[in-house]
Amino acid sequence: MMRQNYKMILQYEGTRYNGWQRQGNTSDTIQGKIEAVLGRMAGEPVEIHGSGRTDAGVHAAGQVANFYLPGELEIPSVPEIGKCAGATRVDQIREYLNAYLPEDIAVLSVEEAPERFHSRLNAVKKVYAYRIETGRRKNVFLRRTMYGLGQPLDLDAMEQAALMLIGTHDFKSFCGNKKMKKSTVRTIYSIDIRQDFGTGGVTLRFTGNGFLQNMVRILTGTLIEVGLHKRSWQSMRDVLEAQDRQAAGFTAPAEGLCLEHVFY
Amino acid sequence: MMRQNYKMILQYEGTRYNGWQRQGNTSDTIQGKIEAVLGRMAGEPVEIHGSGRTDAGVHAAGQVANFYLPGELEIPSVPEIGKCAGATRVDQIREYLNAYLPEDIAVLSVEEAPERFHSRLNAVKKVYAYRIETGRRKNVFLRRTMYGLGQPLDLDAMEQAALMLIGTHDFKSFCGNKKMKKSTVRTIYSIDIRQDFGTGGVTLRFTGNGFLQNMVRILTGTLIEVGLHKRSWQSMRDVLEAQDRQAAGFTAPAEGLCLEHVFY
Repeated sequence: MMRQNYKMILQYEGTRYNGWQRQGNTSDTIQGKIEAVLGRMAGEPVEIHGSGRTDAGVHAAGQVANFYLPGELEIPSVPEIGKCAGATRVDQIREYLNAYLPEDIAVLSVEEAPERFHSRLNAVKKVYAYRIETGRRKNVFLRRTMYGLGQPLDLDAMEQAALMLIGTHDFKSFCGNKKMKKSTVRTIYSIDIRQDFGTGGVTLRFTGNGFLQNMVRILTGTLIEVGLHKRSWQSMRDVLEAQDRQAAGFTAPAEGLCLEHVFY
Repeated sequence: MMRQNYKMILQYEGTRYNGWQRQGNTSDTIQGKIEAVLGRMAGEPVEIHGSGRTDAGVHAAGQVANFYLPGELEIPSVPEIGKCAGATRVDQIREYLNAYLPEDIAVLSVEEAPERFHSRLNAVKKVYAYRIETGRRKNVFLRRTMYGLGQPLDLDAMEQAALMLIGTHDFKSFCGNKKMKKSTVRTIYSIDIRQDFGTGGVTLRFTGNGFLQNMVRILTGTLIEVGLHKRSWQSMRDVLEAQDRQAAGFTAPAEGLCLEHVFY
């Protein structure tokens, strides 16, 4: 039976979910929610493959996942579908998902993908943003997607520390998985640190070829400690070389993190 | 006893509140929440005067309210206050409020005001924004502050209709209070209608010397009907002249509305 591979781009506010990855039959994960709707649409179980797991409470503006559907599958209609004449098959799938997914998960696009396309294995670059409220009170409209640090940061010191992280390194010190058996070498292409005048906070934007478990949050926590002068920017080299999680800083809270984009 | 008048600027996400105005002793209104914290701070009941009532579910980025405190009142400290040496009295009041208010209500500033200053009576101009999602699915991060219309709008027609509303008119057709005894004459200075490329939606921004009950929501609902070609832009003049609520369009949902700024 011919099966068609589909790539979709997803947006979610992770606040009330227990992360991306399905765990048993519980429906409190993003993957679980989407698979439940896709399974109902297809009349058979459908597994989706994400570009990577996001932790409980982490958000996504551009998560990517792929899944296979039987080629001859008739996409069930939803009330609104009738309105858009000439809707293509991928439009119908997107509309079906958006009709039945909760308000905090949205499908931005669905497109046909080559048979061998895999969201995780074919990803070449990812962008994560980490948002920090440095003022005493979080903006009420953005409070779920920012970490409320409530203290000013020395961005120049953070910038100096961040420069030491750019490039290909063994990021073992920044890996949250103590039992990690595979390589902890990754490449960070850029770390952009800027005052966000729109929200009044500071946004750190990490671009790399891949990130270890909790890596962006530990990098952020360590950079925050530099920005608060709890550790010097020069010490960042020692942290990297220690290859020991204990050498790095705290794991910044999930709520400030957002997976923005995955490149293929 | 000498009492000092204070002016504060407030931000709130109205989603879970039953509007601005305190009703009896329930604590599900914005005014009620703030008065409860201020009363605890002052050790006596404190009444606050808002620039106007916002309906249940309506948001504010710049609501203004004033209140009086005994001149000799010692502002109780909160754990974080210790950190900021040299905090002025108005800073202390703001910090106290922000320490005890829920996350969806924030005090942006507190300042001393002249004894006769009144947030509602002295307001000369107000700005309201109404946000509409015209795409099929609301942005998950902005969903609480947008109305999910899910259909494209003819902005040119809306612009034409809006031009007929500019100026000083009797807006009785746009008043949600059927028993309104006072004048329903108001002046609208501008209605700015634009595609918001950041969010993908349409934002209507109303500036006027004051707005009647539900007026911005009824104006918006009527303009949406023009944008959907359910009524012509030329008919807007008839709606105004009818001085009858039945002649105007539907009351757009509260969730899309935000009080942005009050001028004095």
